[in-house]
Amino acid sequence: MTSKPQLIEPRTLKGFRDYPPALMIPREEVLQTARRVYRAHGFAPIDTPALEYAEILTGKGGEESDRLIYRFKDHGDRDVALRFDLTVPFARFAAMHIPKLGTPFKRYAMGPVWRGENTSHGRYREFWQCDFDTIGTTSNAADIEAALVIHELLVALGLERFEIRINNRLVLNGLLQEAGLSDKSVAVLRALDKLPKVGMDAVLEEMSGHGIDREAGRKVLELASSTGEPTEILERLALAYPGNETLGEGVRRLRELFATVAACGLPAERFRLDLSIARGLDYYTGTIYETFLLDLPNIGSICSGGRYDNLAGLYTNQKLPGVGASLGVDRLLAALEELGRLGKRETPAEILVTQFDAASLSQYFRIASVLRKAGLAVEVYPEAKKIGQQLQHAEKRGFKLAVIAGPDELASGRFKLKNLLKRTEEAFGENELAEAAKRELAGEVTVS
Amino acid sequence: MTSKPQLIEPRTLKGFRDYPPALMIPREEVLQTARRVYRAHGFAPIDTPALEYAEILTGKGGEESDRLIYRFKDHGDRDVALRFDLTVPFARFAAMHIPKLGTPFKRYAMGPVWRGENTSHGRYREFWQCDFDTIGTTSNAADIEAALVIHELLVALGLERFEIRINNRLVLNGLLQEAGLSDKSVAVLRALDKLPKVGMDAVLEEMSGHGIDREAGRKVLELASSTGEPTEILERLALAYPGNETLGEGVRRLRELFATVAACGLPAERFRLDLSIARGLDYYTGTIYETFLLDLPNIGSICSGGRYDNLAGLYTNQKLPGVGASLGVDRLLAALEELGRLGKRETPAEILVTQFDAASLSQYFRIASVLRKAGLAVEVYPEAKKIGQQLQHAEKRGFKLAVIAGPDELASGRFKLKNLLKRTEEAFGENELAEAAKRELAGEVTVS
Repeated sequence: MTSKPQLIEPRTLKGFRDYPPALMIPREEVLQTARRVYRAHGFAPIDTPALEYAEILTGKGGEESDRLIYRFKDHGDRDVALRFDLTVPFARFAAMHIPKLGTPFKRYAMGPVWRGENTSHGRYREFWQCDFDTIGTTSNAADIEAALVIHELLVALGLERFEIRINNRLVLNGLLQEAGLSDKSVAVLRALDKLPKVGMDAVLEEMSGHGIDREAGRKVLELASSTGEPTEILERLALAYPGNETLGEGVRRLRELFATVAACGLPAERFRLDLSIARGLDYYTGTIYETFLLDLPNIGSICSGGRYDNLAGLYTNQKLPGVGASLGVDRLLAALEELGRLGKRETPAEILVTQFDAASLSQYFRIASVLRKAGLAVEVYPEAKKIGQQLQHAEKRGFKLAVIAGPDELASGRFKLKNLLKRTEEAFGENELAEAAKRELAGEVTVS
Repeated sequence: MTSKPQLIEPRTLKGFRDYPPALMIPREEVLQTARRVYRAHGFAPIDTPALEYAEILTGKGGEESDRLIYRFKDHGDRDVALRFDLTVPFARFAAMHIPKLGTPFKRYAMGPVWRGENTSHGRYREFWQCDFDTIGTTSNAADIEAALVIHELLVALGLERFEIRINNRLVLNGLLQEAGLSDKSVAVLRALDKLPKVGMDAVLEEMSGHGIDREAGRKVLELASSTGEPTEILERLALAYPGNETLGEGVRRLRELFATVAACGLPAERFRLDLSIARGLDYYTGTIYETFLLDLPNIGSICSGGRYDNLAGLYTNQKLPGVGASLGVDRLLAALEELGRLGKRETPAEILVTQFDAASLSQYFRIASVLRKAGLAVEVYPEAKKIGQQLQHAEKRGFKLAVIAGPDELASGRFKLKNLLKRTEEAFGENELAEAAKRELAGEVTVS
């Protein structure tokens, strides 16, 4: 016996995963839905490389973030790194291309990003993001549209029980000015983030450790955690501080947003004013969005974003304000799975054309092509195995219908169409088959 | 004056490029078309990580190929590498998942791959591949389907003048056996590759340098470079060596393929028998495909593949024969550009809703949402700039229609629909607008 070479163990890196069909079919649906919604609003697709000069990517999210970046020397000894989000490469892209492309510029981008995260909390080191942004305008129209796009996206994904929490940093900044706490904004925002978890007293205690007066702190926290009708809260704020321009502008923009939501006839309960959300302490400067699934509040926000003053200030002197949001594709997929909303299908095709006899292959291919021309997705089983085995394969993979064409059927030109779910069958002529299949599939989702 | 921090130069790495909308819109169309065609034939999507253990990827294409791999140590000091194609990760995937998923297994995969290539010939270091394969069966049905899928894909991409060159390595192997040259196959295949460029004499000269008898060599080369009707060539070969089983099986499989092409009513001139193509010397063992655009013969094959005996032999003892092909997405995009088939549009939306007055914003959003509900892609201009400026933006980006709704139009409820290509306009009520827009766009491609 000759010695065989040792096998290489087939495995993926820790924090990385394969997408087999049962997971990839839903991911493609999510991305295709996002693509359709973004395009319907005039966002254009762009892509940037996975690898960038390290200096483009590092130093954007602080030391913690730099530590997570996959960074190495390439063949030309260049210091390179894998992108850790789609925003920083977009900023670099904007600095290079906006002079030619012009503004306003609306883009979407979808792709994997890489972070050497601790994997203990089910986090992946490779995961997909799916962003949209409007840059080159400070107009509130772009902020309002971002909220409408998030809403339309989640509805298009088949979700109903969700809420988009909306804030505007200008309101918070105005409140801090009024409380004489503008120079303590970082400490207050951090405290605000903890409020739902630890309660008012613990937060005030922490704030006084930062030299913040308890009464001033309490006033900001109480206003920022107001609940109720957005228009009422905004009215109350505007009346409380009529002279504060920062707060006034934030209130004006939020009012216009909620008014447009109402004018478009969208369900009010899905748009909630939440003055406590800050989403990072420095980056966002205006409207802020977070999106929660009511049935899975603990998975966190599945679509977040906001308005920023200057996208690409590190790379260009051209000031590029903008607003946008990012759909967390893998978090959404995990949520859909938990909600039992992921199908179990392992094939995108609905119909399996079985083979009785390899000599009739071209007839099976012809039948399949007739069905495909009618817009159906069809697999021809590649071998003339026993029909029982072929039907088992069809059921395991999630086919809905099977066409059976033995010698009698091929001779008579009438083929059996078997409904694998209902376990019924009926014979049809070749020119009736597609319509019959569509009737059987009616109510089922088809590829198109 | 305070000193400003130095700007970081915004640039991409050599061999990497951004996809702005004018390039990305066509790339999305190509990928979406491929996805639709692959799915219609029952291929299911999968994805694998960009990063793998280096041992999974190295040693697959020889030293030359290893030299091109991006390889580095990750945060856990693991030896990791970026995938250089989609086939090797698929082999690793198959070894891990096929025991559970079962066979036959049909998959497609699309994504970027990375190679530290010399960039002098316009080669990119990051480029997209788009593969489909059927594994776990030796049935000729899968080989035939691969040819049909390539054909359907190119037609769906809007191409007509192309040819799929098809061979079967078994025919070549049979010819080599008959000529007593089985042990010289590498030298003969290499010579065969050069035949069209350097001619018969030069090739025979080179072959005799490898100890190949001129007459034996000439006979193989002449048979392998036969041109004409596939059925006639195959008939001639079968008659010349009736006792050669290897050649006989190759001829049988090719005959069945060309017969099915005819039975499906596909244009015969797009399927050409070319006994000289070998595509790599070791990997493929049966049917081989290459695809050339008749108007751009020099760009090389845009979709290539073949049958192999054992996909995942390095990782598992389970033998996985298969057949598949890979669409070179970036090469195809370059070809479409050269053929003048790429649009110049920088937006996926057809209609720009202009803004007259920021106070009427919710009305503009409402008009846009009415059009979107009819399946149209619509952008609302985010600022109430001069209409002339907004229309300039629309023309530069490639919008086809604009809706103009000033105070009079909003009061009367009749909106101007402007055709930006024909420079015509007409007024419509809100409930007529979508149908009117569709009439204006009739004959134009729309997103959907």
